[in-house]
Amino acid sequence: MSIVETAEVAVDTPQDRLRLAKDAARVTARLTSGEKADALHAIADALLAHGDEIIAANADDLARGERDGIGAGLLDRLRLDTPRVAALAEAVRQIAALPDPVGEIVRGHRMPNGVNLEQVRVPFGVVGAIYEARPNVTVDIAALALRSGNAVVLRGGSAALSSNTVLVGVMRDALEAQGIVPDAIQSVDAFGRDGAKALMHGRGFVDVLVPRGSASLIETVVTESTVPVIETGAGNVHIVLDDSAPEEWARDIVVNAKVQRPSVCNAAETVLVLRGAAERLVAPVASALQAQGVTIHGDETVRTLVEGVEPATEDDWATEYLTLDIAMRVVDSLDDALEHIRRYSTGHTESIVTTDVRNAERFLAEVDSAVVLANASTRFTDGSEFGFGAEVGISTQKLHARGPMGLPELTSTKWLGRGSGQVRV
Amino acid sequence: MSIVETAEVAVDTPQDRLRLAKDAARVTARLTSGEKADALHAIADALLAHGDEIIAANADDLARGERDGIGAGLLDRLRLDTPRVAALAEAVRQIAALPDPVGEIVRGHRMPNGVNLEQVRVPFGVVGAIYEARPNVTVDIAALALRSGNAVVLRGGSAALSSNTVLVGVMRDALEAQGIVPDAIQSVDAFGRDGAKALMHGRGFVDVLVPRGSASLIETVVTESTVPVIETGAGNVHIVLDDSAPEEWARDIVVNAKVQRPSVCNAAETVLVLRGAAERLVAPVASALQAQGVTIHGDETVRTLVEGVEPATEDDWATEYLTLDIAMRVVDSLDDALEHIRRYSTGHTESIVTTDVRNAERFLAEVDSAVVLANASTRFTDGSEFGFGAEVGISTQKLHARGPMGLPELTSTKWLGRGSGQVRV
Repeated sequence: MSIVETAEVAVDTPQDRLRLAKDAARVTARLTSGEKADALHAIADALLAHGDEIIAANADDLARGERDGIGAGLLDRLRLDTPRVAALAEAVRQIAALPDPVGEIVRGHRMPNGVNLEQVRVPFGVVGAIYEARPNVTVDIAALALRSGNAVVLRGGSAALSSNTVLVGVMRDALEAQGIVPDAIQSVDAFGRDGAKALMHGRGFVDVLVPRGSASLIETVVTESTVPVIETGAGNVHIVLDDSAPEEWARDIVVNAKVQRPSVCNAAETVLVLRGAAERLVAPVASALQAQGVTIHGDETVRTLVEGVEPATEDDWATEYLTLDIAMRVVDSLDDALEHIRRYSTGHTESIVTTDVRNAERFLAEVDSAVVLANASTRFTDGSEFGFGAEVGISTQKLHARGPMGLPELTSTKWLGRGSGQVRV
Repeated sequence: MSIVETAEVAVDTPQDRLRLAKDAARVTARLTSGEKADALHAIADALLAHGDEIIAANADDLARGERDGIGAGLLDRLRLDTPRVAALAEAVRQIAALPDPVGEIVRGHRMPNGVNLEQVRVPFGVVGAIYEARPNVTVDIAALALRSGNAVVLRGGSAALSSNTVLVGVMRDALEAQGIVPDAIQSVDAFGRDGAKALMHGRGFVDVLVPRGSASLIETVVTESTVPVIETGAGNVHIVLDDSAPEEWARDIVVNAKVQRPSVCNAAETVLVLRGAAERLVAPVASALQAQGVTIHGDETVRTLVEGVEPATEDDWATEYLTLDIAMRVVDSLDDALEHIRRYSTGHTESIVTTDVRNAERFLAEVDSAVVLANASTRFTDGSEFGFGAEVGISTQKLHARGPMGLPELTSTKWLGRGSGQVRV
């Protein structure tokens, strides 16, 4: 029971929550891998045990959402039912089974004077998250943060306020029953915009802040924050069909990348076809897309090669559709394809289809995106596919984390030196 | 000669400079390790060849500094003479000899479907630096950035404007003579505060910004920037003397940590003595410090044990003296020492002197600083001592880099996947 620390201050500002989270982070940092796994299984059990309460709170959110006229897609992402609550609990158990990154010795050596120096992985401390309506993010991020030894402060979307309040309460009670300070999981939802502001300006209390959601949410967080932010950005994802691209690979990869799940950030949005392959590839690839209900927005050349193609404008090159739409353009050369990508890519994922090793390697080397592929679907940019288990998000920035973020990306390092009286000469 | 790309736009805003740097970064990212080393040796040669010109420009800065009444210490750090120019060139040659971090495969595996996945180290792209008067930083950061394949945009202190202008010009000419686009080394000094503002708000152009200098400079950059920043912070550095601390280790480590170079961030600022060791250690440690001209600011207990100790106030615990002053406090327990450190440390470096492995390991585990030591001088927190060769700075934040930053800390990573037509199922 020594790992319980009882908060004695009255909590009435979001800053108080940050302070309590910081204190709790000292406790979570010292939990063993087994203690953290036990706590996560306790959370999973509690989510199942309180399923009715969670679903009832969610019904309030859904009713309010319907009154406010939010769209059917958003309502669906907001909805929790018995199978979805079971899926939440199962996700927590999967996170409990992931290897604990804390304590890993990243590198080390003995200094010439005999001091033993090692760089070890440690929790960040307090992880902040600002996100939108989906209540599963509340549970996912709390579980990932706890697995990696962090305390977490959550700021969810107001549309999911009732659901998140119950979810956070259930998780906190489960922690407390395990003898772990419940302040390791905090929400600042009750403070509205002030909660978000406190997170963004919580220097000294928030070690890293992860925004997840729309481009405008991310832009606001990046611009306003004075704490370190990991940007999880949009995906204006490109596939290049080289002169040497086999028709079957081209068709399968483009269709999979566009159609399998169009609403996610690793779905393809633009296909660039090298002129030497246009006659051979544009028609079969476009037909395969159209057969799956995809609307093609093409340049002049594409429109002369295929029926039923909408004319593409400058906007189409820059758009992350997230729908069954795709832009298609014929370019003169790989140089031109690379130039198009430099101009319009958001640095998430790009792929080339080619059997020419020179073009594959040039593409891999020169495209400046988090994930660069040759002859594989862009849909592979994903924590589970990469073997990370769960995923915090996909970073499109270059500092600290780039691409799918797993548990190690929720840690920092520190240097430890063990000597026997050494001084610097 | 294919790596030369000539800029054709007229440069008249700091944003233009950022744009040219971004284009140049595409060139530097593709340079081989050998090409980068050759370019650095050419820069070193050019610095020596233009020594007179550099020293003449520096004389202008010194004359202006004297007129403006800047202190003797600052004037000394600003001064360049023949031996110092030779040292600048030598530092560049040492950086040329460091291993190139670019291209390192950090991790990787074959996915179950056969896609070969690897995470490789790549340059950030454009590194920005905002720093103060010392002209050697201009050359050091440019050389480190180039060695790691980055373009760099510099914003030096106005006190060193003439020196920096000549240094940047000499380095750019040397690059051009090597057939490398000179825009890989840029300065925005000519634009005054607008140059710094452009760097801090250069989203999409500046991949990482490193402030080096006073606490207020760093605070401004962290608060104002919308680009990712690596904070190189102040060092309010603590040494704890445990009950079991051997007198010789305690004395040698405290004296070395305070006296060897008091003006740097890894110098000790406060000594915390556990009550059980106070009678035995305070007097000999304090006397040894006083013998080296150190003024001790002590609590009541220290003042009863040693003559000539100034009374310590709350301010003393929070102060990074950077002078021959040190605070000394007797605490009841290791808990109290840890609590003091939590309250006053800036998270740079702390050390404990002890032979009790339980206390050593507890200190190493619980102190949340970039470098935590047992039985070694805090002066070891240094890129050269850690074996990194040169150093960009010492990060006191937790994102991306923590502690001394070497060349790998000036890189990002990207994921490369090589497949043969795989799609997601």
